[in-house]
Amino acid sequence: MKTLSFRLDSGLPADVRESLRKNLYWTDRAVRGVEVSDEDPATVTITCPEGTDEERLTAHVLADVATMTAELGQFPSRTVYESPGEPAAGRPAPLPPDRVLGELTARGWVSEELAGSFVYTGLMADLYYGLEHTFAETARQLGAREIHLPALLGTGTLLRSGYLADNAHAGNYVFHLHEDRELRSRFAAALPPDATEVDLGGLDTSADRPEAVLSPAACQPVFPALAGRRLTGPVRLTGYTRCYRYESGATHGLGRAREFGVREIVCAGSEAEVAAFRDELLAVCRTLLERFGLRGKVVTASDPFFIDTSARYRAFQLSFELKHEVQLDLGQGPPVAAASVNRHGDHFAQAWDIGLAGGGTAHSCCMGFGIDRWCLGVFSQFGCEVEQWPLSLRKVVAG
Amino acid sequence: MKTLSFRLDSGLPADVRESLRKNLYWTDRAVRGVEVSDEDPATVTITCPEGTDEERLTAHVLADVATMTAELGQFPSRTVYESPGEPAAGRPAPLPPDRVLGELTARGWVSEELAGSFVYTGLMADLYYGLEHTFAETARQLGAREIHLPALLGTGTLLRSGYLADNAHAGNYVFHLHEDRELRSRFAAALPPDATEVDLGGLDTSADRPEAVLSPAACQPVFPALAGRRLTGPVRLTGYTRCYRYESGATHGLGRAREFGVREIVCAGSEAEVAAFRDELLAVCRTLLERFGLRGKVVTASDPFFIDTSARYRAFQLSFELKHEVQLDLGQGPPVAAASVNRHGDHFAQAWDIGLAGGGTAHSCCMGFGIDRWCLGVFSQFGCEVEQWPLSLRKVVAG
Repeated sequence: MKTLSFRLDSGLPADVRESLRKNLYWTDRAVRGVEVSDEDPATVTITCPEGTDEERLTAHVLADVATMTAELGQFPSRTVYESPGEPAAGRPAPLPPDRVLGELTARGWVSEELAGSFVYTGLMADLYYGLEHTFAETARQLGAREIHLPALLGTGTLLRSGYLADNAHAGNYVFHLHEDRELRSRFAAALPPDATEVDLGGLDTSADRPEAVLSPAACQPVFPALAGRRLTGPVRLTGYTRCYRYESGATHGLGRAREFGVREIVCAGSEAEVAAFRDELLAVCRTLLERFGLRGKVVTASDPFFIDTSARYRAFQLSFELKHEVQLDLGQGPPVAAASVNRHGDHFAQAWDIGLAGGGTAHSCCMGFGIDRWCLGVFSQFGCEVEQWPLSLRKVVAG
Repeated sequence: MKTLSFRLDSGLPADVRESLRKNLYWTDRAVRGVEVSDEDPATVTITCPEGTDEERLTAHVLADVATMTAELGQFPSRTVYESPGEPAAGRPAPLPPDRVLGELTARGWVSEELAGSFVYTGLMADLYYGLEHTFAETARQLGAREIHLPALLGTGTLLRSGYLADNAHAGNYVFHLHEDRELRSRFAAALPPDATEVDLGGLDTSADRPEAVLSPAACQPVFPALAGRRLTGPVRLTGYTRCYRYESGATHGLGRAREFGVREIVCAGSEAEVAAFRDELLAVCRTLLERFGLRGKVVTASDPFFIDTSARYRAFQLSFELKHEVQLDLGQGPPVAAASVNRHGDHFAQAWDIGLAGGGTAHSCCMGFGIDRWCLGVFSQFGCEVEQWPLSLRKVVAG
């Protein structure tokens, strides 16, 4: 392995550094590691195999950096609320995320099934489901009705919503073997008894035109289910589902998993109804941080799109404050985004022909709780001994 | 389209007919429809496109029929318990599954996202989560601790357990695009604005060696999480997860979906501990049928394996009564298998080196509740008006 380093312009906001850390893996398969230093100006260091064409890789990385950093200085992220957390007296500094994962693994509470996919038991499972229950209860108090969301979505659904055009690289595509008696035998015959992977090369499959993609965001299947409706009042729905994003080399621990659990709240209605509901969702963010005594912030944010239109889209989101995130403090290093509140305007309602009974197109907004990341924040800030947690969190795990 | 018909031997058990209905789609891509009549002897009718090579298809279908029906008569399925259901007075005959789906769709409670993947709202969502809650409570009463199970499993996990060698055709394989700046642009450029499917042909992806398969059975990821342990007593775990099977043309309605929800209970321990727990699980089957007043049976059953070893494996399962199913009556037509109880012997413990502290290999068993199918059974037997349901079920949806 060798490394390539580049000095960036000064004044790069923290969220842009984080976006570079995550997205530069997508520049080229030769990128095996990405580091972005915290000094100003920052240095990007790329790890790649010895034989890599340096000139070509450098050109590609610089082009992607330029796209991702364009127009960024103009619209910085804004903090709208800050929670100091439980009184600091006697409270240790938050455990870094890798230490949390190490502790939970050593106790047998977390085991990795696959890079980015985990089994939880013990206190980790109790906290995960306790928080999910709390978020579901919060949603019901906001008047949301339960909706059951699948994870297997039609490719057409994600094309129609515009998701795949911008995020094809993050897709977890699903395919199957084609039906054929001889193919079945050939597959079984070719499988060594101690195989650890399958070789489907040369078999007839649906991979070229995969019929399904795993849900990348919990609200995606909600709108097709409302297609063609004319709403007589605001529709408020809430569901739990697993979401899936392929994050390449950025896949890491509980903070950036390939499979993660989401409790989602969605509202569709008139522009005014949706705006009022969005304000209720922002109030929920503040209330939950306070209730659990977690140190964190609510900030305006942008989605980490990074293909050609991304910088412009980010500026658009930030300038109109379309997206907010709950960020939990993890001590040194960046915080983790544990929930987001998003205004969609009439984007989804246009795509799925969802209108208002009185005329006009509906608007929508949503909130997603990333449950695994809330668990990470709790273990980082309060440690692994449940007796040392705030009472509000001890109640959550006690059911 | 044209049809080919074959008369089968007489005396074919009902579960074998059902297995043929489901599995003959796997013989050849030309098979577009499979019907197996209920008379004795039964007739199989295959629908296929006009241009199909009849001789070749006939040979393939007959070969698969022979494999699936070999040795079958010897070990018929045995009914171990039968629940008459609520008193029949004034109770209408069960609604057929297609009528149930039509009714639920008309009320807006079920909408199809993709063939075999559904969104639920209204009474359907309330029943689904109410039953899941009931089954989870039942598991806790049996002493099971919560485990959180992912759906994205490593291909290696399903090879090591032996699942893929027998069931590669049912796999939902997951892949991603390889990291490449130019590939991203090429994909986006090739996407027509009104695309309804993606064409990934010619792009560099991981499809030939897919790294993940969607969980086909909820217990699969439990055993790797216990790998290497030496148990000092029985381990009882319970988790909720979504499972995925590609069922080709047999995919149909709520009874045979591609994605479905499972509440799972797993026990690992000594042979005697596992045998005792399995008996508790069988008692649970009876109790739940009675509690909800559902008409159904508990029967010995076999997995619908159908490649070369399948008939022998089925005979093995039936003769040793390794598998039981809860079958709910759906009126005319076959019942739906809504739960299964399975003895694994030391199969999984051998594969994952799970031992007993006192020496020897552990044994295991599991029970899975197919929640969507319980919902189908309830709507079929009691209709769509919650006021007409038995009190025990009204309590389930009331939370």
